[in-house]
Parts: sequence; C-alpha cells; structure tokens
Amino acid sequence: METTRILLDQNEIPTHWYNVVADLENPPAPPLGPDGQPVPPAKLAEIFPDNILEQEMSAQRWIAIPEEVRQIYALWRPAPLCRAVRLEKMLGTPAKIFYKNEGVSPAGSHKPNSAVPQAYYNHAAGIRRMTTETGAGQWGSSLAFAGQMFGIAVRIYMVKVSYQQKPFRRSLMQTWGAEVFASPTDMTEAGRKALALDPDNPGSLGLAISEAVEAAASRADTTYGLGSVLNHVLLHQTIIGLEAKKQFDKIGLYPDVILGPCGGGSSFGGIAFPFLADKAAGDRRAQHLRCVAVEPTSCPTLTKGHYAYDFGDASGYTPLMKMYTLGHDFMPPGIHAGGLRYHGDSALVSQLYHEKQIEAVAVPQLATFEAGVQFARAEGIVPAPESCHAIRAAIDEALKCKATGEPKVILFNLTGHGHFDMAAYDRYFAGQLEDYAYPAEAIAASLAHLPKVG
Amino acid sequence: METTRILLDQNEIPTHWYNVVADLENPPAPPLGPDGQPVPPAKLAEIFPDNILEQEMSAQRWIAIPEEVRQIYALWRPAPLCRAVRLEKMLGTPAKIFYKNEGVSPAGSHKPNSAVPQAYYNHAAGIRRMTTETGAGQWGSSLAFAGQMFGIAVRIYMVKVSYQQKPFRRSLMQTWGAEVFASPTDMTEAGRKALALDPDNPGSLGLAISEAVEAAASRADTTYGLGSVLNHVLLHQTIIGLEAKKQFDKIGLYPDVILGPCGGGSSFGGIAFPFLADKAAGDRRAQHLRCVAVEPTSCPTLTKGHYAYDFGDASGYTPLMKMYTLGHDFMPPGIHAGGLRYHGDSALVSQLYHEKQIEAVAVPQLATFEAGVQFARAEGIVPAPESCHAIRAAIDEALKCKATGEPKVILFNLTGHGHFDMAAYDRYFAGQLEDYAYPAEAIAASLAHLPKVG
Repeated sequence: METTRILLDQNEIPTHWYNVVADLENPPAPPLGPDGQPVPPAKLAEIFPDNILEQEMSAQRWIAIPEEVRQIYALWRPAPLCRAVRLEKMLGTPAKIFYKNEGVSPAGSHKPNSAVPQAYYNHAAGIRRMTTETGAGQWGSSLAFAGQMFGIAVRIYMVKVSYQQKPFRRSLMQTWGAEVFASPTDMTEAGRKALALDPDNPGSLGLAISEAVEAAASRADTTYGLGSVLNHVLLHQTIIGLEAKKQFDKIGLYPDVILGPCGGGSSFGGIAFPFLADKAAGDRRAQHLRCVAVEPTSCPTLTKGHYAYDFGDASGYTPLMKMYTLGHDFMPPGIHAGGLRYHGDSALVSQLYHEKQIEAVAVPQLATFEAGVQFARAEGIVPAPESCHAIRAAIDEALKCKATGEPKVILFNLTGHGHFDMAAYDRYFAGQLEDYAYPAEAIAASLAHLPKVG
Repeated sequence: METTRILLDQNEIPTHWYNVVADLENPPAPPLGPDGQPVPPAKLAEIFPDNILEQEMSAQRWIAIPEEVRQIYALWRPAPLCRAVRLEKMLGTPAKIFYKNEGVSPAGSHKPNSAVPQAYYNHAAGIRRMTTETGAGQWGSSLAFAGQMFGIAVRIYMVKVSYQQKPFRRSLMQTWGAEVFASPTDMTEAGRKALALDPDNPGSLGLAISEAVEAAASRADTTYGLGSVLNHVLLHQTIIGLEAKKQFDKIGLYPDVILGPCGGGSSFGGIAFPFLADKAAGDRRAQHLRCVAVEPTSCPTLTKGHYAYDFGDASGYTPLMKMYTLGHDFMPPGIHAGGLRYHGDSALVSQLYHEKQIEAVAVPQLATFEAGVQFARAEGIVPAPESCHAIRAAIDEALKCKATGEPKVILFNLTGHGHFDMAAYDRYFAGQLEDYAYPAEAIAASLAHLPKVG
C-alpha cells in the first residue's frame, strides 16, 4: 500500500519547542507603552504569570516542554502528517502535497498546542482562574479544554453576535466546564460603558479583549490567555513543524514550500519556524525553502499593510507592537475565516517578512471555499475556513508544478476541521458568499491613524 | 511518558474481515418473505449487487479486504486505541480503561467502515448510483463520503424533521457531493402517498427507508445501502476489533470486558466479534471474556424484547428477520442517541445473545450524558450520544472494580464524536433532558403485533 499517513509514537513527541528569536537577523523590537518607552515587565505581570513572561522575552533557541504538557499533548499528538495523493491525482500535478492534520485535537484545531502549556504554566504559578475572549470560538474552546486539564477555572467573554449565532461552540466550552458570557457584559467597567451607550451592542473582539483583560487585572489569582500573536504562543505552536520534520525524516523527504494560513501568525509560525531553524543552521536541504503566509485579500496585513508600531487591539489598550498592520481601527469585512480577521500580525512573523526570510500571498474568499470543497472530496476531511486559505495556496502551487513539470514537495498546515463552520459551507453552496473588493480606502483611512512613535 | 495511545502503521491495517457466522453454534435463521418462505436471492438482487449479497450469506471465516478499500481506510485508519488514564484517576479505579476512537473518520463515526466497502463493491459491480435513508445523519454522511471516493452518485432521503433540525449534517453530505432530500418527497410512490394523507408529514425513518428502497428498486443502475443490522455491515465493522487486538498485542494486554453501544448492532459487533473469534479458537485469554451490548432503557431491544421473526422496518416492507425485537411498530421515545432508536437488532447479535455468548445491559439517558461529560473533562474528546452509552457502562464496570479491587482491563467502542450533537448537550446542561420510564405498555402492544410465522 502506498504510504499516505506518517505517524509518530507518543514518545516521539518533541521534548523542546523552537524559539525563532534565537535565529533572527536583528533583535526584536520591544513592545512600547503609550509614552513610547519599552513596557515595564511589572505592567505585563498584572495579566501574565512570570513563567509565561520569561518565555515571552526569551532568546534561548530550545525551550524544554514540561512532561505534564507532553502527557496532555499525547491525548492527540503527534498529529498525523498525511500525503494528499487523491488530491494530487485530481489536480494531475507531479507535486507531492503533504498536510499536517491539526484538526485531530479535542477542540478541533491547533489552538490547544498553546492553550495547554498556558494552563500548565499558570497552574504552576499558583493561578486559579484565567480569562480570555473568543470570536468564532476556536481559541475559547481550546482554553476551556486546557483549563479543565489543569484544574483552572476559565471565564470566556464571547462576542455577543457569535454567542448567539454559534451556540455549539459555546456548548463545547461549557462541556469542558468553562463559564461563557456574551460580551459586552455588565460585569466589567468596559462592558458597562458599552452597554450604557447601546444596550443592544452586538459586541466585538476588541471589546471582549478589554473585558477579559480588565477581569484578569482586577484579581490577583486571575490571568489572561491570548491565542495568537505573542512570542510564547508561536513558541508553543512550533510543536507542529518539529513533528513534521521528524515525519519527513522517516520518509526521506524535505519540503520545498510550506504554507500556513496567517491571521495573528501562530499557525503559520508553528509549522514554518522549525524549518527556518534548519536554514539558519546551514542545512543544505533548507537553502531554497520557501515559507509562505496565506492571508485573505479582505484583510491583507502582510501584503498591503505597513511595518510600524501599532496597538494589538482595536481600542488601544494593549502595548504598541512593531508589526505589519492595517491600522488598529481597520474593521475587516465579515468573512467566514474569523481567525484571519486581524488588523495586525505577530511581531515575529512581521519581522521575518520584513527581513525577507518568508513570503506572503493573499487569496479571495470564494476561491478558498472552492479549494476546501475540492480537498474534502479528495481526502475526506472537511477543513475549517482558515485552513481553506492554506489549501487554496497549496493547490495553486501544485498547479504551477503541473505547468512546469517540477515534482515539488508542498507542505501545508491543515489547522482545523470545519464541523463548527458548516453554516459557512451552506452559504457557499447557496451562492451567498462574496469576494470582498480589496478595501483600499478603509485601509488608507485606518493607516492614517497609526499611533506616532519615536 | 506513560503510554496512553497505541498506534498502528498504515500497513498494519488488517487484510481480512472476520465473519462470526463461521463460529456460530447454530446456522443463522434465514430471512423470510411475507409467505413465510426464505427470501429468494433474486428479490434481494433488486436492491443489492451480487458481490454484497454473497458477503451477506457467506459462512467463510475470513474475507479479504480489497486493496482499494484499505487505501481509503488509510485516510484515517488504523484508529487509535487509547487508555483513559485521566478517567481512571478521576474514578479512583484499579481498572485499566481503553477505548477505540472511531470518531477520527472524516464523517466522525465508525459508519464509514462499512460505507467505504459498500461503495467499492457497488462500483465494482457497475453500479452508478446508491440511495439510502438517514435520521440523525451519521450514516447518510458516511455514505456520501464513501460514494465520493468511488465516483458513485449518492441520494439520501433524510427524515424531514432532522433535515430541518440538523442542517449541518445535511451540509456535510452536500460537501461530499451527495443529493439530500427531506423525506417524504414527491419523488416516490411512498412519499407521494404520505404527503397526500398529510402535506405536513414530518417524516420517519421507516418512511425514508421505503423511499430509498423504492428509488433503488426502480432503476437498474441504482442500489440501496444500509448502515447497520445486516451481516455484511457487521462483517465490515470487524475492522475495529481486529485492529484493537493487534494494539493490545503490542502492549501485552487482553480485555476482560468489551462494551459497545447497540442499536442495529454494527458498532457492538464490530468491536466484539473479533474477540469472540479468539474464544471460539480456544484462546485461553478469551475464556472469561465478557462482551456487553449497551442499549438505552427507552429502547431495550435485547433486555426486554422477544426473540422472534419481525420486519426490519416500521412499515413491513423488508423481509422478516429472526431477531430480538420490541415489535416493528414500537416507536421509541425521542432520545438524543438517534442511532440506538431501533425496534430490532442485528440477527447475528441477536443469535449470540440468545445463545448466551454475549450479554446486554440497558442504561438511562441522563446517566449517559453525565458519563459523556465526565469523559470529555477527563480525556478531552466530546463523545456522540450513542458512545455515551458505552462510556456509562464502562464507568459502571470500573466502579465495580473499585469496589472489588480487581484491576480489570475494560475496552469500549468510542463510536463517534459529538460535534454535530451539541444541541443535545445544551439541553442536558439546561436540565431539559429526561429519563423516559421503561415503556412497558407500548412494548407489550407492539409485541402483540408481531407477524405470525411458521
């Protein structure tokens, strides 16, 4: 039988995460406060425990994964590396298309890769409660699951419109014992302020972040957990690429192109960074490797944004981060890949893009669903809308190979399954989805509001 | 690290299914026609191809799995055998609890194990179209997926009330290219008759079966696929137990108790039968093995039914099968484990129960959801309501071990995930689910209508 699934044993789960900071050409730009000065650690300690902050600022190349985290990872990891032979045949391409299936986690996406260590480190630091926000629900359900594993009570502020439209993501969080509230709530200053202005406020991710951060800052036993963007989150996600490397070793192959959907940057960084480590170490196989971040044309942060200091949230509560941004008050169109609707990007992904170590491409919504359906019909798995972006780009690469005859090895990150996103597929089949025009004016307007620094 | 997941490589997918008919004490009772005589094969050939019928009647112990089927199985198989160490600790039991995770298939349950070979054999027999019915949607989505793999057009008659209440199962089938119709339709005689009597007929599984069978019988290029009950379906499902045996061999253990949810019988038979083969072959390890079919108290076919000839469907269109039955016009309460709401049971499971080779137990609805939530909080995976029945029984066995101090090895079939069943969990959390009293009068009434045979 042709080998199409490369598995690793439980004891082959990597023992260390890879920290790309160690291999950057330049030191990372520090987060700045509203005064333009580097943010003092004490400020961040209000919402993060010391052990997480230490990882956030670390420049150490390899960071040990605690045994307790590896044991929880083992509930679903190592995740399979699969070769999409049926898709290759359907496309008639000489390329070999591989995907790392992160949809096998309990929460159905790659997000638990960071939620689990975050819950572990918080537990180790004596924290009893964590807060977070969630939009589409991928991150909220992952932290709910992870909190349950380490006995941490999790409180989730879910954007009200999602709370109403996606009741099943909410039930999933409740099954894992989390408290879920429709944001804005009357339990925080930020929420009460919003409700006073408009009692029917449908909520927004920015507002939910404000509520979660306020709730974490107001209690000493409570911290905040973020699902992407920050260095420690990308660090944890490198488990994806590290496993993939071991799996490619088993079959004696090495990727020529690596593709990951890119919103905040954790799924792209997670699969790509460990291969960049090979490049940095002078590994011959990696010298021509291309790593491509795939973003939606409706929210083209890397391909159309500026590299500048900007707030991480819409309201300007967070520190300023040096990153590619469309402006913190840019509101992307309501595409169905909720995880990619972010005005900014991880500082690490941004710096690597700026230093031309990685590439980026933007793809339109309809073409991503077309790719997702083609993938489902070839390989069985129905992918999440975010993953459909990587699939679209992988198919495009494979079709280029068909034209040139090159038998390239393509790897993409199948970040999650689409079981909770079938309403989006319904709308696609009904012809109700659209390709938003590149929102040039809105982006120009929000870029004009970038905070002045230095 | 403690070993909690036992994996097999793709090339360790079993090469043969196990046919329990070869090891029955007595020959199976033949299906009978309305005249009380064995059904002539030509009658069945109207809706099944010859190669499927051959398997249905075979008494050969081992039947080769075609390479094409193994290659599709490899999209998700071998399925992991997992040890629920966190659940064991939570219960404080000396028992070792293992589960076979069948939720990893594209359709999210064990059903593709038979849908794939059914599509393969039909394709091999020159069939271009298949019909089937679906209630909750597990089987319909599995046949949609399998049909797509072999280029067979699949038409699914989905009970209208489910079609309306479970739009996401429908979208899943459509993503795999199947046509899905709300039954009753105006496309069949049976449907038109029902609509003439009541244009708002909400549909029923019995009616949907009638439509699917009629549609298959009316065209020479079209057959019908059934998701449980029949011998060939249980044969295909033995892949579950055959893999589990290889996995137990790897860790040098053997189960003392095997539990599977039991509706039509395919998930229970699939995990249990291969171990009965050991018993039949005189394997010392299997001599005290207990195999327990777990059914809902609201539909207690094995524990409260009669062993008699009865129709397989509600309307009396199918042949008469010798089986445990609650009477073909018994309508079980609307519990959320739709896959277990069947008045009868597989003839093979029924005969083994009658010959005291296996046991059965009935569990009430609320206790199954309680068990499912406990499992999700321990092991991460949110189980389907059907699977919750096996989990309930497994926890009960483990608690008995706690009382006696016996370190038994318990194996249960985690037949599927609950991602499309979160509405049921919602109702459970909201206190809206109930334990139906044992419907003694309704069962007595329907048993009084058993057809007279011989």
